[in-house]
Amino acid sequence: MLQVWALSGLPEVDAGANLAALIGDAIGAVAGSGDVSGSGSIPDGESLENGDIVVITSKIVSKAEGRFVVAADREDAITAETVRLVAWRTGPAGTTRIVENKLGIVSAAAGVDASNTPEGTILLLPVDPDASARAIAQQLRERFGVEVGVLITDTLGRAWRDGQTDHAIGAAGVHVFEDLRGQTDAEGRPLVVTKPCVADEIAAAAELVKGKASGLPVAIVRGRSDLVGPLDLPGARSIVRPAELDMFRRGADEAYADGYAAAVAERDS
Amino acid sequence: MLQVWALSGLPEVDAGANLAALIGDAIGAVAGSGDVSGSGSIPDGESLENGDIVVITSKIVSKAEGRFVVAADREDAITAETVRLVAWRTGPAGTTRIVENKLGIVSAAAGVDASNTPEGTILLLPVDPDASARAIAQQLRERFGVEVGVLITDTLGRAWRDGQTDHAIGAAGVHVFEDLRGQTDAEGRPLVVTKPCVADEIAAAAELVKGKASGLPVAIVRGRSDLVGPLDLPGARSIVRPAELDMFRRGADEAYADGYAAAVAERDS
Repeated sequence: MLQVWALSGLPEVDAGANLAALIGDAIGAVAGSGDVSGSGSIPDGESLENGDIVVITSKIVSKAEGRFVVAADREDAITAETVRLVAWRTGPAGTTRIVENKLGIVSAAAGVDASNTPEGTILLLPVDPDASARAIAQQLRERFGVEVGVLITDTLGRAWRDGQTDHAIGAAGVHVFEDLRGQTDAEGRPLVVTKPCVADEIAAAAELVKGKASGLPVAIVRGRSDLVGPLDLPGARSIVRPAELDMFRRGADEAYADGYAAAVAERDS
Repeated sequence: MLQVWALSGLPEVDAGANLAALIGDAIGAVAGSGDVSGSGSIPDGESLENGDIVVITSKIVSKAEGRFVVAADREDAITAETVRLVAWRTGPAGTTRIVENKLGIVSAAAGVDASNTPEGTILLLPVDPDASARAIAQQLRERFGVEVGVLITDTLGRAWRDGQTDHAIGAAGVHVFEDLRGQTDAEGRPLVVTKPCVADEIAAAAELVKGKASGLPVAIVRGRSDLVGPLDLPGARSIVRPAELDMFRRGADEAYADGYAAAVAERDS
């Protein structure tokens, strides 16, 4: 049985806040009250348990880390955060850019967040979400005396599927992949699909209780304690496919144009 | 609170089986026994409730529908199921092909499943997973007298992220997207990221309890009854991005080569 619930009672997060302390206080308050009526409560009024995974929307990590920048225009901010322009398409609603950001993540917004931020400012992703996750996990482990994992999530689009789902962009104390390589099926043959990205699946499950508009940025996932381990497990950075293995490192139209231009340049040289 | 658990007691599924009846029997047996000790049991010995979502691994739907084909070679089967070759890359372990299958889904295997099938056979995806989901949902609704949704899932890779996660390839009676368009943030500005693909998030959550090797192909998701609705809601086919909006319709190297060849052909003509 997997249980996933949103943490209630978290205050607005300001720059410089100790996020692990705020989350810990919210957990402690729920645990102490014995209140199980609210949908955001920890079940049975319990505290954190060994093997729980705390899933945190990157936005509040960015806020605590003071990652606000003044930006009159979201598009300018995306440009500033872009390491590499992957693809773009201009339509009636403007130009959509797919870009790679400083964390290697390919998305439509470079991790720039212009919603729920003060007017005239935008919010950048944490500088190092894996390090942020590690610091929070360590504090929660010390405070509650249990081995918990922490994921930091962002909402990303997908190449071939419409809409967005939440993904893990920071991780600490959680196996981001469930490694089934070497395991066999019931007939004794090796499993061909062998590397479920459980960190992204947990991020997705957490989004179902956090929601985009409900203002509940932290969820607890209980029931996969087998995935929780030492704080120095590989982080979410290890989920990003290395460039040399990425078959979709450039948009189809852009790559076509590059190839065409290369042939023309060769002819003219 | 979201609760997700795997259904225990499902027998091996053979061609021609009435899958909805088998799932219903497994639910009924658990509900009747009052046994809450097993990890796969329905909590509190209850039956299906209004708003539950039944998440079914496509493999057993394919088995019930008799989608076995004789195939000495998995690669030949992938070729037969491929509508369009999107990208390919040859490495030390052989050639990886990314292909579009008959359902429009882009993946590395065209939906061909060679694990846990009898030797010398492979399993194709259901012909119409949305229709399969609808038939199962209708039977479960009639049998249990509750409004439940059904998702059929497959394991898919992602363009820019390593590993695989489960996705919805069939859906009935479930909103596949949570439509937030028109909603605003706390500052009154429109939400920019506006279309969470909740069907894929539910599929991912379900995979966390089903697992790849554990042989539990059905999970129940309870706690998002707001997403359950009429059986004629748009199916999972609506998640597939239409070709004209797909910026990654062809691999980067392949598109580059296409562009190069086009310029050369123009020169030579």
